[in-house]
Amino acid sequence: MAWWPRDKWVEMRSGTDCPMCADAHLPSNPASDLITKLSTSYARLARNQTAAGYCVVILNRHAAELHELEAGELAGFWSDVARVGAAIHAEFSPVKLDYLVMGHRAPHIHCHVYPQYEDDDPFLNVDISRGESILGGAEQEDRLRALRNRLRPD
Amino acid sequence: MAWWPRDKWVEMRSGTDCPMCADAHLPSNPASDLITKLSTSYARLARNQTAAGYCVVILNRHAAELHELEAGELAGFWSDVARVGAAIHAEFSPVKLDYLVMGHRAPHIHCHVYPQYEDDDPFLNVDISRGESILGGAEQEDRLRALRNRLRPD
Repeated sequence: MAWWPRDKWVEMRSGTDCPMCADAHLPSNPASDLITKLSTSYARLARNQTAAGYCVVILNRHAAELHELEAGELAGFWSDVARVGAAIHAEFSPVKLDYLVMGHRAPHIHCHVYPQYEDDDPFLNVDISRGESILGGAEQEDRLRALRNRLRPD
Repeated sequence: MAWWPRDKWVEMRSGTDCPMCADAHLPSNPASDLITKLSTSYARLARNQTAAGYCVVILNRHAAELHELEAGELAGFWSDVARVGAAIHAEFSPVKLDYLVMGHRAPHIHCHVYPQYEDDDPFLNVDISRGESILGGAEQEDRLRALRNRLRPD
C-alpha cells in the first residue's frame, strides 16, 4: 500500500475530521486514558501497557509538523514530553525511554513516550503496537494516579 | 537477547566510550556526513538515503534522556530538529516527517528525522534501517550542500 490519496492527506494534515482533535482531551478513548492536561498538551496513558508506563503526549491544538510551531509552543511541548518522561522514569525505572513522533494515521503532533526494560532487546526495531497488555480498571487507575501525582505543578 | 548488562549500560549512559561523543562532529563517519553545526547540536545527513533527506540531529554534549537537559538546552535542541525538518521538507517535499529519539545502542540524545514519501505505506512500522541506498559522492555532496544552504542563519 502507498500513502493516503493526495486529497485525503491534505485534508488530514489540515485537521479535517482529526481523530486526535476529537478525543485527546477525553478522560478515556479507545487508545488511552487522560493523566492530566499540561501547558501545551494532554498527557495520556496508553491502554496497551505491554511496556509499563507507555504514554502519549498530544499537542492541545492541531498541527502536523514540528516546524509549524512557533518557538514558545515548540519549547512548551517538549518540556511537557520531558516532564512525562521524568515521571515514567521515576515511577517505573525503565532502562531507556524512546520518544517517537510519527502521525501517519493522525497527522496531529503527538509523542509516544515508550519505555524499554531489561528484558527488551536493544537491537530490535521499536514497535509501539507490540503485544497487548490491557490492565484491569483498578491497575490502570493506579498507574494514572501515580503519574498524575508526579506531574502535579510544584 | 535482553538489554545490555547492567554495569555496561551504566557506563554507556554516563558517556564512557560514547561513539557519538567521538564522531558526531566529524565531517564524515560510517553512518553520516556533517551538514552543519547548529545551536546545541550537529545536523548530519545519513549515509543510507533510502528515505531521501534522512538526517540525524545529535546533541553537542553527552546526555541520555530529555529530562536531563535544562529548559534552554531542551528548547534549543528541538528548535534545531525543527529547523532540520523544515529544510528537509523544503528540499525534498516528503508527505510527512518522523522524529525518532531512541539510543538503545548509543544513549546520547539524537533525533532521527526520517521522511515518508508517497510510495511509503503509512501503516508499516517505521524502520530507519530499511533498505540500503548509498549515494555516489557527488550526489551526497549535492544533498549536503542543499541542506546546508537552507540551514544558514538568516
